[in-house]
Amino acid sequence: MYYALLFLFYSLGLVAYSTIVQEITEASSIKYNGLVAELKRNGTSIISLSQGEAFFDIPLFSFEALSYPEAYHYSHSRGLESLRKKISDLYKKDRGLHIDPETEIIITPGSKPGIYLALMSILNKGDQAIVLEPCWVSYADHVRMCNAECIGVPHTETVFDVQNYITDKTRVIILNNPQNPSGKVYSKVELEHLMTLAVRHNLFILYDDAYSEYTDDEPFYSIAEFDLEKKHSIVCGTMSKNFGISGFRIGFVITNAELIKYILKLSRHILTCPSTIVQYYVEMYFEDILSITRPQIHALIQKRREVAKIIQELGLEVMPGSGTFYFFLSIAPTQLSSEDFCMQLLTKKKISTTPGISYGKSCDKYIRIAIGTETVESIYKALVVIKEFIRETSA
Amino acid sequence: MYYALLFLFYSLGLVAYSTIVQEITEASSIKYNGLVAELKRNGTSIISLSQGEAFFDIPLFSFEALSYPEAYHYSHSRGLESLRKKISDLYKKDRGLHIDPETEIIITPGSKPGIYLALMSILNKGDQAIVLEPCWVSYADHVRMCNAECIGVPHTETVFDVQNYITDKTRVIILNNPQNPSGKVYSKVELEHLMTLAVRHNLFILYDDAYSEYTDDEPFYSIAEFDLEKKHSIVCGTMSKNFGISGFRIGFVITNAELIKYILKLSRHILTCPSTIVQYYVEMYFEDILSITRPQIHALIQKRREVAKIIQELGLEVMPGSGTFYFFLSIAPTQLSSEDFCMQLLTKKKISTTPGISYGKSCDKYIRIAIGTETVESIYKALVVIKEFIRETSA
Repeated sequence: MYYALLFLFYSLGLVAYSTIVQEITEASSIKYNGLVAELKRNGTSIISLSQGEAFFDIPLFSFEALSYPEAYHYSHSRGLESLRKKISDLYKKDRGLHIDPETEIIITPGSKPGIYLALMSILNKGDQAIVLEPCWVSYADHVRMCNAECIGVPHTETVFDVQNYITDKTRVIILNNPQNPSGKVYSKVELEHLMTLAVRHNLFILYDDAYSEYTDDEPFYSIAEFDLEKKHSIVCGTMSKNFGISGFRIGFVITNAELIKYILKLSRHILTCPSTIVQYYVEMYFEDILSITRPQIHALIQKRREVAKIIQELGLEVMPGSGTFYFFLSIAPTQLSSEDFCMQLLTKKKISTTPGISYGKSCDKYIRIAIGTETVESIYKALVVIKEFIRETSA
Repeated sequence: MYYALLFLFYSLGLVAYSTIVQEITEASSIKYNGLVAELKRNGTSIISLSQGEAFFDIPLFSFEALSYPEAYHYSHSRGLESLRKKISDLYKKDRGLHIDPETEIIITPGSKPGIYLALMSILNKGDQAIVLEPCWVSYADHVRMCNAECIGVPHTETVFDVQNYITDKTRVIILNNPQNPSGKVYSKVELEHLMTLAVRHNLFILYDDAYSEYTDDEPFYSIAEFDLEKKHSIVCGTMSKNFGISGFRIGFVITNAELIKYILKLSRHILTCPSTIVQYYVEMYFEDILSITRPQIHALIQKRREVAKIIQELGLEVMPGSGTFYFFLSIAPTQLSSEDFCMQLLTKKKISTTPGISYGKSCDKYIRIAIGTETVESIYKALVVIKEFIRETSA
């Protein structure tokens, strides 16, 4: 079929594009945020529950105090050494983990390229990656871009069912903790079990802890705590969420020195380094920013509790979870697909959310709700409308 | 062989990595710059002719004047609209080209990811890309990362021989103008010929104009001037070199709206957007920075003229060229490979350069010399040593 199309394109004098860009999906939350921005520009008032950002109040520290002219030029391709040291120190202090800043960490422009380059370093054509649904929209596409296959474990299964999805082609289990979109925080027992599987089947666990600060009372563990030699764990972290500076584009990957070397090799061709001036800024004001965002993250988690209560009072259902600033809300009674539900909710009711289908095939009866940018009052209003819209669109 | 190794790894309980990271080459100039940095840290004095940067004197403008809190958050995934407009205006003013800032441009964190994502959007497994040697080290690896094949046209051939390298698998010709490492500036006739080939064979020309401001008396043309509908041209540009802010990581791709849409689709998964605060900064001080760097670029081109004269006086040979701040110097009499030559030159003579082999198979009797960071006196001294070292290592 593809070759027939290609031939047709050629004979029409049209230029064809790669199959990969045609196969991958639209990054759904970004698509919805784009639509929201357009509607807002046209003067439409929207309650935005689609944005994967928390808007914190962060002062601007001095850029003049940074190092010049160094800040204008490429940094070390592993990232600024002093920033690697700061991240290593943070993991030491918070989790008791030893990470060699020289060889076991690379700074990336956000965690997205870190995840992509890590997967590219370990996946060959035909390999398989396992994801636990619901999961972040881009994992499956990252895997596809590596010509590998993404196997989703449906949300009705638990981590103790994961072994049933492992084949001799499986190379990696991708895990997000706390989990976007449900807020699930994996327990020690669950993580230990997954690491046992990784060791037994010689797999990596790619562990995305973007929301590591966004936890409530449940204890939070890094997968690296169960793999001190970093033989099987790849921790992909970011300043985006924990530091409230998603637009700065500073993330990092922590794993063994050999894999870092491979990621570095790719990164030198594709990226060189993250923005140097921003690296200097984050390094210099590292503790200041954290001390400012941590109380605000705490307040956001309190807000999440309030919203959880409202959801319960309204009789709506969500997947269990206490972390992040997301809820994965069931729309089970509706006759609509989650894509249609979200699109109609946006155009008819002026509320933006993200369709569950973007988080896995098993999740089409859910939508994601992000509470980072709107007030509790607005969120309450929106939830009432959503409840009514589920009813309106059910049989 | 690969599967045998994989099996061996598995049976030893070792984790294997992807073939791609093992097949791609080290980004050579970055490797040498890393070695230089290490030697310098140990107190060794090095004449650095390997660095692909010009160190300009640029003041720090105010970050306080930018838009907050917007600067902390994701920008539009096409990049800041006002910055797209500025780049579009510059191409209009300088080249008379019409580029729709809404649909025909995407801002990328440097031109490297722009080139990579553009290639990923057009190349399928088994496709071919043609590069004209000598050419920038990463093109071939970008192509390999797309599972496609890179066909190098040896430096002894001209653009009028390129048609002999076109097959039914060819999808793109990658062109760097002015050319790193030789400084060659393509003439109108050459560019028109390549565009004729592109139209006839239904190819893209990926046109990397990173050094577009670094030209002397020869007229400089953008490939887009010969393809007003942008059906066959993909212009990959950057602020790194022309604005002297390589470390800021701001580049862009200009092409037709459909291809931009595909690049955007990939970018949303892999990158989201370039650092927003840096985009605001470059947008606000766009003209200021250009008005400061342009005279310095002009001075650097004058310095290039001086060095060209010295090279001639010393009886050394270089590939013809007048642009960029590079020379591609012949080491023909030596018995060493360019890799060995550069490594020994660094360790024994404390001069860092980049081996020609990184710029194509046909270029192993050349080394690249970058004159952006050292004084003419130091460059002269280094050239005298290089001349002697060529003699020392010849038969």
